[in-house]
Formats: sequence, C-alpha cells, structure tokens
Amino acid sequence: MSQALFSSALLENAVQEFAKLPGIGRKTALRLVLHLLKKEKNEVESFGNSMIQLRHNILYCTVCHNISDTDVCEICSNTSRDAGTICVVETVKDAMSIENTQQYKGLYHVLGGVISPMDGIGPAELEIESLVNRVYAGEVKEVILALSTTMEGDTTNFYIFRKLASKNIKITTIARGVSVGGELEYTDEVTLGRSIVNRVEFTNSYK
Amino acid sequence: MSQALFSSALLENAVQEFAKLPGIGRKTALRLVLHLLKKEKNEVESFGNSMIQLRHNILYCTVCHNISDTDVCEICSNTSRDAGTICVVETVKDAMSIENTQQYKGLYHVLGGVISPMDGIGPAELEIESLVNRVYAGEVKEVILALSTTMEGDTTNFYIFRKLASKNIKITTIARGVSVGGELEYTDEVTLGRSIVNRVEFTNSYK
Repeated sequence: MSQALFSSALLENAVQEFAKLPGIGRKTALRLVLHLLKKEKNEVESFGNSMIQLRHNILYCTVCHNISDTDVCEICSNTSRDAGTICVVETVKDAMSIENTQQYKGLYHVLGGVISPMDGIGPAELEIESLVNRVYAGEVKEVILALSTTMEGDTTNFYIFRKLASKNIKITTIARGVSVGGELEYTDEVTLGRSIVNRVEFTNSYK
Repeated sequence: MSQALFSSALLENAVQEFAKLPGIGRKTALRLVLHLLKKEKNEVESFGNSMIQLRHNILYCTVCHNISDTDVCEICSNTSRDAGTICVVETVKDAMSIENTQQYKGLYHVLGGVISPMDGIGPAELEIESLVNRVYAGEVKEVILALSTTMEGDTTNFYIFRKLASKNIKITTIARGVSVGGELEYTDEVTLGRSIVNRVEFTNSYK
C-alpha cells in the first residue's frame, strides 16, 4: 500500500474496514471514522451492532427470496396483495425500486441474478426452479419479467418463458421507452426505437 | 420521513445508522448495507467491531492531544524527532495531513478547534493552556501556527501569540501562496496578493 499508515493501529484498522466498502476510498473512510470517533460510545455501538445483527439475523423469504425478518416476507404474507401476479426481478434492490413506485400490488420473485455462462451462473444458481414451482402450484395468472435489457437478461427472460410455456398464463415484460420528462433528443436510439414500436393508445388517464 | 421504509426492520435500522454518517444518504446507505449483507458473517463482525473497539479503546496523547493507542503518541515519544518545534493544528486530521507530507520532523499540538465565540468556543474549550505549559516547561524553540485562514483562525493565532509573547521563542505560520503547479489565473486575489508580499529568494534547492 502506497498510502501512509496511521500512527494508531485501531484507527488504521477501522479505516481499512470502511475502505473495503464499494465507492469508499481511504480519504472518505478516514472522514467517516473520525466522525464516529466524535460520537458517544453508545451511538457507535448501535452503528456497529446494527450491521452485525442485520447480517446474523436477516432471513430470505422462502417464497419470493426477498430479504425479510420472518420466514415469509411482509409482501408475500399480505393477503390484500394480488397473489395472481408475480414480478420477476434480479435483485432485492430491484424489488425495492418497484415497490417504491407504489404502482404494483402483486408479489415478487427475486432470482438472485441472471443467467451468465461467462460468470459461471447457470439456471441452477438462480431461483428459477422455485419460480416455476410457484407458477405451476397455484393461482398465478401473470408473470411480469423485469430483468435487465442485456444479453444475459434476454437469455434469462427466454429461459423462463420456455419453462412457463406449457402453463397457460400471461407473460409480460415491463415497458421500455423514453423516461417521463425525458427529451427525445437525448434518448438513445434503441430505447427511442422501442418506444415507437411499443406505442400505446393515448388516453387522459395517465398520471 | 418521506422515503419509503423497508419491509425488514433490521435492514431499515442498518440503513438508518449508515445514513447518519456525513455525506451518506439513504440510497448510498442501502447500497453499502446490501454489500455487507453479501459478505461472510465474520467479515461483517470485523467491520462492526472495528468501529466499536476504536471508539472504546482510542486514547488521546496526553502531550499533543493527537489520537493514539498509548498515553503518549508515537510522534511525541519518538526521540529522533525535533522536540524543539511544535506545529499547532486544529484537528487530528490536519496533523495527519502535515505528517503525510514527510517534510516535518517536529512535534504537534492539536487544539481541538479554533476560538469561535459564535459557537461558544472560547480558549478554555481548546488545548491552549496545555500548549502554553508545554512551551514554558521546556526546550521549545519554535511554534508553527498552522490554523485556518479564517477570522476564527486569525483570532486564535493572535491569542496564542500573545500568550507566548513573554517567552523568547520563534513563532511562525505556514506559508500561504499559489499552490505548486497552480496557475496564477485561477488563484484567488487574496492568496496571490499574499504570495507576492511573502515572496522568497529564488534558489535551485526547491524540490
């Protein structure tokens, strides 16, 4: 390491731990650690322990594989949600993003990634079988595919599509197009092209 | 709070703790927490515990008030350093910055801030008395003032200067001027003005 070590081993250790986090370099790590040093002991304890407790006690929902405090997450166990619709996402964060729109009232299924032979990720590494089982087991009427528009995402979409083909359900993907408020001039050609092909009938009901 | 809460209380708690840090919002906090969630339990424990241990076990050097693992810090107890020179800085971080230049071989004195009546910080709240005691006690030949060039910094400089006036030592301040490699065109007028007034004789010995 070319950077100077700090005279305090405790400080050096704390800075190194912080600097392991993505997007946090040694300078930022030092700033954050010195900030924590100024706080009361119980505040620092609650900071450190909150991470340790999270890592030790977090569960993954046995149905949708989203993170959860209980065996079945709040969304899956919420009877007021539409159990007939499953939105398939790559990560926990994607599920959160959709949830934050407050536009979706169905359930989720977190795959844990997309099929990527280059990275050694095949269908068996993902929660695809459990998705197929969910669909074949029950009352599912629609599966919404909300994966990345990459080669890997498309491969995964197609794989899931084929696995579910024998079951007579609706399979959709989220709309791709010009973002709301976005200018045509600055939209990439592929997106703009797709927004023309997948145009929708004009109504006044859009919010 | 206008932002959505996460379905997991453990996650919510960890994100809130991270988001308390300066410059870290909820989005970044979530990214960091999800990163930690993917790590092994012992790695997360070592992260959390490193902060708690730092806060509990860190000491402040009884001589210079820099952070330290021992009662007297490595710099103050290093006999190969020049005990006749004390560089007065506001914060631990300032001492680190000067130390990292590897151009200074004297000792430090961390004030813990500058005199700022607006914030209720008077000389008594700072380590000024201990500085005066250090100077009057011993072999100190030069005190270098390296405080901010703000009204508060200037006030503090002047206060220290007066306190040390009866002792026959050299009192200096660090040079202010155009940064090395900096262009005159983009240097502020005050700095450029001071760099003209405090010009130094040209030699070839500058690195």
